[in-house]
Amino acid sequence: MRVAVYPGTFDPITNGHLDILERAVNLFDQVIIAIAEDNYKQTLFTLEERRYLVEQACKHLPRMEVRTFDGLLIDFVQSINANVIVRGLRAVSDFEYEMQMAMMNKKLNHNVETIFLMSASKYSFLSSSIIKQVALLDGSIKGLVPVEVEEALKGKYMLKAGTREG
Amino acid sequence: MRVAVYPGTFDPITNGHLDILERAVNLFDQVIIAIAEDNYKQTLFTLEERRYLVEQACKHLPRMEVRTFDGLLIDFVQSINANVIVRGLRAVSDFEYEMQMAMMNKKLNHNVETIFLMSASKYSFLSSSIIKQVALLDGSIKGLVPVEVEEALKGKYMLKAGTREG
Amino acid sequence: MRVAVYPGTFDPITNGHLDILERAVNLFDQVIIAIAEDNYKQTLFTLEERRYLVEQACKHLPRMEVRTFDGLLIDFVQSINANVIVRGLRAVSDFEYEMQMAMMNKKLNHNVETIFLMSASKYSFLSSSIIKQVALLDGSIKGLVPVEVEEALKGKYMLKAGTREG
Amino acid sequence: MRVAVYPGTFDPITNGHLDILERAVNLFDQVIIAIAEDNYKQTLFTLEERRYLVEQACKHLPRMEVRTFDGLLIDFVQSINANVIVRGLRAVSDFEYEMQMAMMNKKLNHNVETIFLMSASKYSFLSSSIIKQVALLDGSIKGLVPVEVEEALKGKYMLKAGTREG
Amino acid sequence: MRVAVYPGTFDPITNGHLDILERAVNLFDQVIIAIAEDNYKQTLFTLEERRYLVEQACKHLPRMEVRTFDGLLIDFVQSINANVIVRGLRAVSDFEYEMQMAMMNKKLNHNVETIFLMSASKYSFLSSSIIKQVALLDGSIKGLVPVEVEEALKGKYMLKAGTREG
Amino acid sequence: MRVAVYPGTFDPITNGHLDILERAVNLFDQVIIAIAEDNYKQTLFTLEERRYLVEQACKHLPRMEVRTFDGLLIDFVQSINANVIVRGLRAVSDFEYEMQMAMMNKKLNHNVETIFLMSASKYSFLSSSIIKQVALLDGSIKGLVPVEVEEALKGKYMLKAGTREG
Repeated sequence: MRVAVYPGTFDPITNGHLDILERAVNLFDQVIIAIAEDNYKQTLFTLEERRYLVEQACKHLPRMEVRTFDGLLIDFVQSINANVIVRGLRAVSDFEYEMQMAMMNKKLNHNVETIFLMSASKYSFLSSSIIKQVALLDGSIKGLVPVEVEEALKGKYMLKAGTREG
Repeated sequence: MRVAVYPGTFDPITNGHLDILERAVNLFDQVIIAIAEDNYKQTLFTLEERRYLVEQACKHLPRMEVRTFDGLLIDFVQSINANVIVRGLRAVSDFEYEMQMAMMNKKLNHNVETIFLMSASKYSFLSSSIIKQVALLDGSIKGLVPVEVEEALKGKYMLKAGTREG
Repeated sequence: MRVAVYPGTFDPITNGHLDILERAVNLFDQVIIAIAEDNYKQTLFTLEERRYLVEQACKHLPRMEVRTFDGLLIDFVQSINANVIVRGLRAVSDFEYEMQMAMMNKKLNHNVETIFLMSASKYSFLSSSIIKQVALLDGSIKGLVPVEVEEALKGKYMLKAGTREG
Repeated sequence: MRVAVYPGTFDPITNGHLDILERAVNLFDQVIIAIAEDNYKQTLFTLEERRYLVEQACKHLPRMEVRTFDGLLIDFVQSINANVIVRGLRAVSDFEYEMQMAMMNKKLNHNVETIFLMSASKYSFLSSSIIKQVALLDGSIKGLVPVEVEEALKGKYMLKAGTREG
Repeated sequence: MRVAVYPGTFDPITNGHLDILERAVNLFDQVIIAIAEDNYKQTLFTLEERRYLVEQACKHLPRMEVRTFDGLLIDFVQSINANVIVRGLRAVSDFEYEMQMAMMNKKLNHNVETIFLMSASKYSFLSSSIIKQVALLDGSIKGLVPVEVEEALKGKYMLKAGTREG
Repeated sequence: MRVAVYPGTFDPITNGHLDILERAVNLFDQVIIAIAEDNYKQTLFTLEERRYLVEQACKHLPRMEVRTFDGLLIDFVQSINANVIVRGLRAVSDFEYEMQMAMMNKKLNHNVETIFLMSASKYSFLSSSIIKQVALLDGSIKGLVPVEVEEALKGKYMLKAGTREG
């Protein structure tokens, strides 16, 4: 059985992530979405919120499971007996960072392979960061994230605005 | 009438910005310099200081106006009935970031076009950040920024040094 | 009056070119499509064929004219009293080549400005070369080129096949 | 059953290709090496020679088969009921070309996925072209190609030299 | 006498740095490793610790000296009568940043030249940051840093863990 | 004694090459310009013409010698007991090609080091190819090449035009 891990912070999940996922489930017997706890990086959504949003967005996908992890990705991959890491590539800047990570992971564990899928061109400009920037300034992100994420972002920033204004 | 917006943080304005501006005013009926308030990013100069320095540097340019904005750039562009955003491109890393922003803005408002001008090669290494780094360490920035900016940076960092030493 | 030139070999014109053109006509008072004779590069279509296909594809566009030129682009631009060159940018490799040409043209004539538009993401993989490769091998190019170009390519390669087989 | 195609001209196969292949056979139930006939590009080795060298180099690999094809890659992939194309990525310039091809292939056939593996860093500078250049000038290519290829290149260029000198 | 400066934060020194250094000492009469104090950037190791680790790692190298500096690099270079700055290049993203710095330094002092060495491909993915990330998560960095650095990182992070847990 | 080789086709030498050379002679005890015979690539100028133009352009430079070579560059470098290859870097596309060559040369001979100098920004768009294109179309190349090259190009293309027209 070939098990692939699709890791990320998913803060929050976008339609670009979903596109990669939908293609990955056709390539492997099982795909594990691995959400990084990321204690060392400020996230907008808590780990539990990110997990919930991923689960809502992926309900329709077969052969898939959502997990969270901390520590080294490669240790997590090995602990669940997976042998493939899946990553999306959008642009040249992605490419160099991803190449660095793939080489480091290869060095850490020679049996795990990283494969890359090119993002669909219509999502090539999309990232969790730009989604948060636009949502924060009250711009429309319809069609770029799952509906549940749209709602969650609205709630998050309304709450923040309330705190600031109150 | 074709109105173009040249947006940025201008913290502070450099001769690279001025070069783009001087070329942009020949292409459009009016050019609006739009200074972002950038509440979410630490700036060295306050919004009022940045505005003053831009105004001093651009006094000689015709058909030009200085404005400040907060919120989404694309909303500001629409609010003043402009239809073009002007951006300078220096390097490959600029290119990918700018492409991402241009595509997002196109999605947010299909009627606004982003155009790019290549920076003059003599300014291709110039950025507000590198100017601040060099000035902070007391290096010469003559010829890279307008005279007023040179003075303002000197004042800013002398003040800081005073605070540290005092 | 601001006149812009959109130069190229257009061997043949693609929907990516058309997208840039449709956006350029909104930015200037007139846009001249300038088809390079390119004596020094093998083209699939003759200059007259390329011109015909461009004219068919652009019939619906206002304030536009089709011209052919040989010699230096910058000399042609000056000869028709234009002051802007328009170019599309798809990718990093485009960027460096275009930057080189823009700087050379700036040196040859300081009064002419080159502006860049980012290709729509759905056309970011599109080029005349890839279109010819796919058409030659009998792949579908529907939706990537104007209908007339689709027909013309079919005719061209059938003829070639006939010659080979005959 | 998941069948992947690893296409190329393989003129000649290098240790960089072999590295990608050895990793690909662990990811899929079967890997088909598809050697392009490339009538339109001058190759040093004939199709039969390239096929022979690939077969010699890959004898030790399980679940693998060598095939030749002409026409569109995507048509070949479909004709053998494969659903994945495997490609190696060495550098940024590869990345942009490969992205263009992957997007075109996706448009031509939505059911076929292209996946990318990063070349091992020790082969990141390796290409069939540089191998031919070095061998032609009598430089050592030991360790960069399979032994059979080393011999074949020696033979090829000695023959050529003979022809020139004779 | 030709004296070259190899500047950096060295937080901590890696085998990639060492590779550049070992090659630089063959090119010049003397090489000065210049460790930046970097008051404005959070470092994991103190200046004294970084200096100690560099000294341990470079004991075997001839014609070499370790120095620390604050202020502008170019001022330090001039103050010790050096005329060359040595930098390693790993990837495209390095390239653009380094180009910017080299041009700025050229402008600040025309007599100082920056030269670049390409990192060995086996270290092309290596950086002080990725080393710290991996070590922090208890991954193996054997072979990527000098032994003393491996120990020092272990100590540093055990201490931190102790603090957190205690 | 440290001897560096600055290799190239120099078809013809440009002011960009000269800038690199003038900086290289300050870094080494001797610099050898090595002009490649390039039997396998069409050059505009013959080897003797290219050599003559380089010699004219470099008359003012101390500690420099002009040589021609065929075969592998690395063999030539070793044959004259040099230990350094000098190359200029203008852009990202240069970078990747140069990295490939530097790594191949390192593999062919571990004792020879390749160092890179960044082109002056005012020459960053300059190449022998673009110079030939512009000169061919009768554009001005003043300030971009030495005076002798300007003359030689004029002569070359007048001759060609004569041949065509005659």
